[in-house]
Amino acid sequence: MNSFGNIFRLTDFGESHGTAIGGVIDGMPAGVEVDLDFIQQQLDRRRPGQSDIVTPRKESDKVKILSGVFEGKTTGTPIGFMIENENHHSADYSEIAKAYRPSHADYTYDCKYGFRDYRGGGRSSARETAVRVVGGAFAQLALKKLGIDIYAYTSKIGTIGIENDKLNYSTDEIESNAVRCPNTEKAEQMYRLVKDLKAEGDSVGGVVTCVIKGVPAGLGEPVFDKYNARLAYAMMGINAAKGFEIGMGFEGAEKRGTETIDNFYNYNGEVATRTNNSGGIQGGISNGMDIYFRVAFKPVATLLKDVETIDQSHNDIVLKARGRHDPCVAPRAVPVVEAMAAMVTFDLLLQNRCSKL
Amino acid sequence: MNSFGNIFRLTDFGESHGTAIGGVIDGMPAGVEVDLDFIQQQLDRRRPGQSDIVTPRKESDKVKILSGVFEGKTTGTPIGFMIENENHHSADYSEIAKAYRPSHADYTYDCKYGFRDYRGGGRSSARETAVRVVGGAFAQLALKKLGIDIYAYTSKIGTIGIENDKLNYSTDEIESNAVRCPNTEKAEQMYRLVKDLKAEGDSVGGVVTCVIKGVPAGLGEPVFDKYNARLAYAMMGINAAKGFEIGMGFEGAEKRGTETIDNFYNYNGEVATRTNNSGGIQGGISNGMDIYFRVAFKPVATLLKDVETIDQSHNDIVLKARGRHDPCVAPRAVPVVEAMAAMVTFDLLLQNRCSKL
Amino acid sequence: MNSFGNIFRLTDFGESHGTAIGGVIDGMPAGVEVDLDFIQQQLDRRRPGQSDIVTPRKESDKVKILSGVFEGKTTGTPIGFMIENENHHSADYSEIAKAYRPSHADYTYDCKYGFRDYRGGGRSSARETAVRVVGGAFAQLALKKLGIDIYAYTSKIGTIGIENDKLNYSTDEIESNAVRCPNTEKAEQMYRLVKDLKAEGDSVGGVVTCVIKGVPAGLGEPVFDKYNARLAYAMMGINAAKGFEIGMGFEGAEKRGTETIDNFYNYNGEVATRTNNSGGIQGGISNGMDIYFRVAFKPVATLLKDVETIDQSHNDIVLKARGRHDPCVAPRAVPVVEAMAAMVTFDLLLQNRCSKL
Amino acid sequence: MNSFGNIFRLTDFGESHGTAIGGVIDGMPAGVEVDLDFIQQQLDRRRPGQSDIVTPRKESDKVKILSGVFEGKTTGTPIGFMIENENHHSADYSEIAKAYRPSHADYTYDCKYGFRDYRGGGRSSARETAVRVVGGAFAQLALKKLGIDIYAYTSKIGTIGIENDKLNYSTDEIESNAVRCPNTEKAEQMYRLVKDLKAEGDSVGGVVTCVIKGVPAGLGEPVFDKYNARLAYAMMGINAAKGFEIGMGFEGAEKRGTETIDNFYNYNGEVATRTNNSGGIQGGISNGMDIYFRVAFKPVATLLKDVETIDQSHNDIVLKARGRHDPCVAPRAVPVVEAMAAMVTFDLLLQNRCSKL
Repeated sequence: MNSFGNIFRLTDFGESHGTAIGGVIDGMPAGVEVDLDFIQQQLDRRRPGQSDIVTPRKESDKVKILSGVFEGKTTGTPIGFMIENENHHSADYSEIAKAYRPSHADYTYDCKYGFRDYRGGGRSSARETAVRVVGGAFAQLALKKLGIDIYAYTSKIGTIGIENDKLNYSTDEIESNAVRCPNTEKAEQMYRLVKDLKAEGDSVGGVVTCVIKGVPAGLGEPVFDKYNARLAYAMMGINAAKGFEIGMGFEGAEKRGTETIDNFYNYNGEVATRTNNSGGIQGGISNGMDIYFRVAFKPVATLLKDVETIDQSHNDIVLKARGRHDPCVAPRAVPVVEAMAAMVTFDLLLQNRCSKL
Repeated sequence: MNSFGNIFRLTDFGESHGTAIGGVIDGMPAGVEVDLDFIQQQLDRRRPGQSDIVTPRKESDKVKILSGVFEGKTTGTPIGFMIENENHHSADYSEIAKAYRPSHADYTYDCKYGFRDYRGGGRSSARETAVRVVGGAFAQLALKKLGIDIYAYTSKIGTIGIENDKLNYSTDEIESNAVRCPNTEKAEQMYRLVKDLKAEGDSVGGVVTCVIKGVPAGLGEPVFDKYNARLAYAMMGINAAKGFEIGMGFEGAEKRGTETIDNFYNYNGEVATRTNNSGGIQGGISNGMDIYFRVAFKPVATLLKDVETIDQSHNDIVLKARGRHDPCVAPRAVPVVEAMAAMVTFDLLLQNRCSKL
Repeated sequence: MNSFGNIFRLTDFGESHGTAIGGVIDGMPAGVEVDLDFIQQQLDRRRPGQSDIVTPRKESDKVKILSGVFEGKTTGTPIGFMIENENHHSADYSEIAKAYRPSHADYTYDCKYGFRDYRGGGRSSARETAVRVVGGAFAQLALKKLGIDIYAYTSKIGTIGIENDKLNYSTDEIESNAVRCPNTEKAEQMYRLVKDLKAEGDSVGGVVTCVIKGVPAGLGEPVFDKYNARLAYAMMGINAAKGFEIGMGFEGAEKRGTETIDNFYNYNGEVATRTNNSGGIQGGISNGMDIYFRVAFKPVATLLKDVETIDQSHNDIVLKARGRHDPCVAPRAVPVVEAMAAMVTFDLLLQNRCSKL
Repeated sequence: MNSFGNIFRLTDFGESHGTAIGGVIDGMPAGVEVDLDFIQQQLDRRRPGQSDIVTPRKESDKVKILSGVFEGKTTGTPIGFMIENENHHSADYSEIAKAYRPSHADYTYDCKYGFRDYRGGGRSSARETAVRVVGGAFAQLALKKLGIDIYAYTSKIGTIGIENDKLNYSTDEIESNAVRCPNTEKAEQMYRLVKDLKAEGDSVGGVVTCVIKGVPAGLGEPVFDKYNARLAYAMMGINAAKGFEIGMGFEGAEKRGTETIDNFYNYNGEVATRTNNSGGIQGGISNGMDIYFRVAFKPVATLLKDVETIDQSHNDIVLKARGRHDPCVAPRAVPVVEAMAAMVTFDLLLQNRCSKL
């Protein structure tokens, strides 16, 4: 189903080259001031054409609020919104209509539905993530009022990664370059790599790290709906995501208990842990420390190169290089990761209001 | 909430030292023969006390079916079941009642609920995963009839891991040793490591790999409910899980598109891909190739050593070593990973019946 | 929440005088031809201004499909749609903004949200039911292909009602008059009553009867999600609905078992019942006979008369007669009842595909 | 599905003659004292064999709590519970196994599942409602602490009904007789009627009225999840229910707006309405006045008389009178109606905590 969340719930619609993409936000509490500039700014960070290392598709991505906001504030009723697709008449799809592009969703959609909107990837296009950014921005507006801050950044592109990542960065540091890496030296290397690959028509993978600060202890549900499980679900639902880890993650699997337990101590009257290998979550529930996790993105499969594949009749074909491409998804995935993290966090926060009478 | 799945749905209850743990399986189709031996066998693979490298808690873990099965077959109505806790009067919890054990859920549960069943971890105990194994076994009974096979195994403990993992193993190979690693040389090394750490009172992390064979192309939902997102959610909800990756995973983030796209070809009339970096899922939907993923588990936090921490009044204390512990969670997590994968797969399979008229 | 249905699910947004109302239909199977004329025709039956006995508000109620339809057929992905509000700048709301109109939702919305969009009733306006009509029309398109036919009609207005209702009518009979009553004699009396009350500025209640034909035996879920329970939920969620009864309904409560059991018999090889007091549903599941039920609507509370009430500061006030009103909701509720019945039926039908392996 | 509620959610399992019936209550807040006597007392009001006018089946209906309660208080984790079926080996079902009893669910279950547990009605037996009574009792424990009181009573059996029902009664008045009618004169007539019909082997329908007092203004959701829609769904899911009406109900459909609007006035600083035709709910949301509604129950279809019907092979047969029967369901439905009303109310109350930031 195309809805996300239990109490704060985003329902998402739209294809890459249809009339519009959009959604409905249900469960947004009443009385929150709607900062339209913030929402548009988050969209702009995801927008194509924002720099010389991303896909040049022309879309202004202006969001139009259709309901649920009155006199500048949320009313508690559902917020319908849409983003018109401006670029939807441009292409000739006769070749792509019948081809199954490698590592794309053409074949799998045909298997599932017997039929698909093949224009620009249709529903499987990453264009859909703009809707998530709007949903996330509303959640962020509420979270900010509660002192919760969420930011993400590119921590790795190809083999170029931040070492001993300190996790604490300002938005200015992150936004200071086109790859959204707060380490300026690495950022410069990443930028050159992506630019070179763009020229070659190739692509490269990357890792986005996200930090959530200010979450009170006690958020998350036991068993299935652990905070970390909800985050993993949210992140792995983003296009091109192939991996998720929280706290010490895969590296922790190599270690021993004596090396990794996070001892509690009394820090000026507050409960704190001396280390944070848990990533701020224990038993699926936040412990008040910073939450941090990493999402691995594959190199996108759209290349400006000829590729061998098959068509709908299962004949071998060669698809000719054409169009435009996004050599590395990480920089534009940053606001999407933030949006998904915000929706998960706010939903759990609302859910938590019901845990005690 | 304590339910898992949309159409095939497990609702799970129970604390480590309460009267019983159990659950309700809703959405199990009618007419499936119930192989009680298979269900019990899966439980036995998860059971404490099954070998000399796991926790020695005494539990027979016998499942009792209360409804939904008639004359040996499922009726389509909910299957209630329970597993009585036999070992629930044994301990003195006066010390643990007030302490917050490091990297456990004691503190976070108190923050969430203001109150907790502290006996043996209560609801946060991994004992609860026995319920998932029962749910998963019912899903597996249905999947087997449809030609879908799921198996998991320990692929890494500490730094000892299978290299160039070929992914294809028989159940016999996996079950041939106590660590459930099908590579006998590595298995032997892993076993010795775990045994040594048990003697030391320490613990170690591990990685479990899972393979799903025979899934028809077309399962999974676009956008949020991608097959991989549902798997990630399922796995990260297992106690001690800290990471999830599918197909090429985090390693793929270091690579280029030209190295990683999975070219389609016509294999004797069937659609196949020459490589399987995608891990059998494209655009969130299965493509008919093998699905495989890895789950990272942290070293468990229960150590037989004194640890520094605080109590409910936020006083610094030292918790004395006591009781029993499980030095590595991976071997017993294997059937839990299989169970969760089975429930996800069967739920998506039922959901898929509604994608075309 | 503002979603309806489990597998076939409508999410609904919009206020009476906002930019637009609309929705997202999720779970519509792929490959169904979209008859836009039929959808618009259903909307036109609900539209204000369609006759001289309904509210004269000027709205063309043209639906705009934003996604999920490609080359004239559904794609299986969510169908976003909207209906622009044309009449949204016309009024002066300074008085109504502070008043609590009797038997309206002004006071209750303020209690719930602390704040409301007061223009024309905002979210509580019956204008929202246009969205349901679109959702229902999509369900009807699918049901028609499966041989299931749904129609509703006005069976009572005030004390004027069809006696010994035979339940079988053609659409032409129903649509032959402005009150949508297939009994022409009663229709004429009803019409005159409504017209007189309109002139007086008063309103009157009514009953809508709905018949569902061609439902195969076996739809509906045991226990909570009985077909009749789902219908009751759907109908009582329509504005102004105060009662629901199925089959013999409240009259049956006065009778004896020997008078009311529906004996089965073999009718040319088919299972049939000699009477149909059950209304086609037994144990919550359809038995293959016609399903029929009745919905009671109250006289709408908007009157063209001065009314005594209070304002937001709890002062006693007299609200002056103003604007326009709908003297009887039944005729325009007919397509809404059909839409809700269609969504319930189609959702259960999809759900039923999972009841056997 | 077999779950009820969104935040406070009961999942229900069990067949009439299986091992046990039971359920899981999810979403019960932590820290509520569990009054086991109250829970058992509610079960006893529903229990068979409680008087000489109900079915004599022997069941003690003792509930066993399996989890979620610790030191006499709820922990916030799921409450698993069961009621063992004591009477499950007594009968010979060879005849009933193949017959389709009129107005029972035998035929419809076979159509849905292809197979059924035919012993005593299996899943379709009203025995299942004991599970709802337990779920409702937990909700009532929480509601009582919040000053919300719910009671139901038999207001009509056959044509004998309370006239000008004043709606206000004490539990003592209701419990003073076996039919649970607080009007002692009518109660006496009802009792004699039921007793006579029991002797004849016939049955009779009835109406149960329910009143909810102390609900704060503001509960309920707009559009689909109106408080009244949720109540209707809950009530029509009870076995044998055929009708639901709230406030003025079907009678209101005959009236005019000027006769039925509920004028607001300032009652000692509080908002009140001069009449309560709305039944305490306006626009789907509570207005602070008493909520009241009525549920119509059909005469149960189990008669101690020979009945004509068909068998599984569609042959005409005569089913001989046998066993025991319940001549009027209303008196035992009273606690079930209360339970369902309590679960709806508490769920909406928890949901409402999220309507403002």
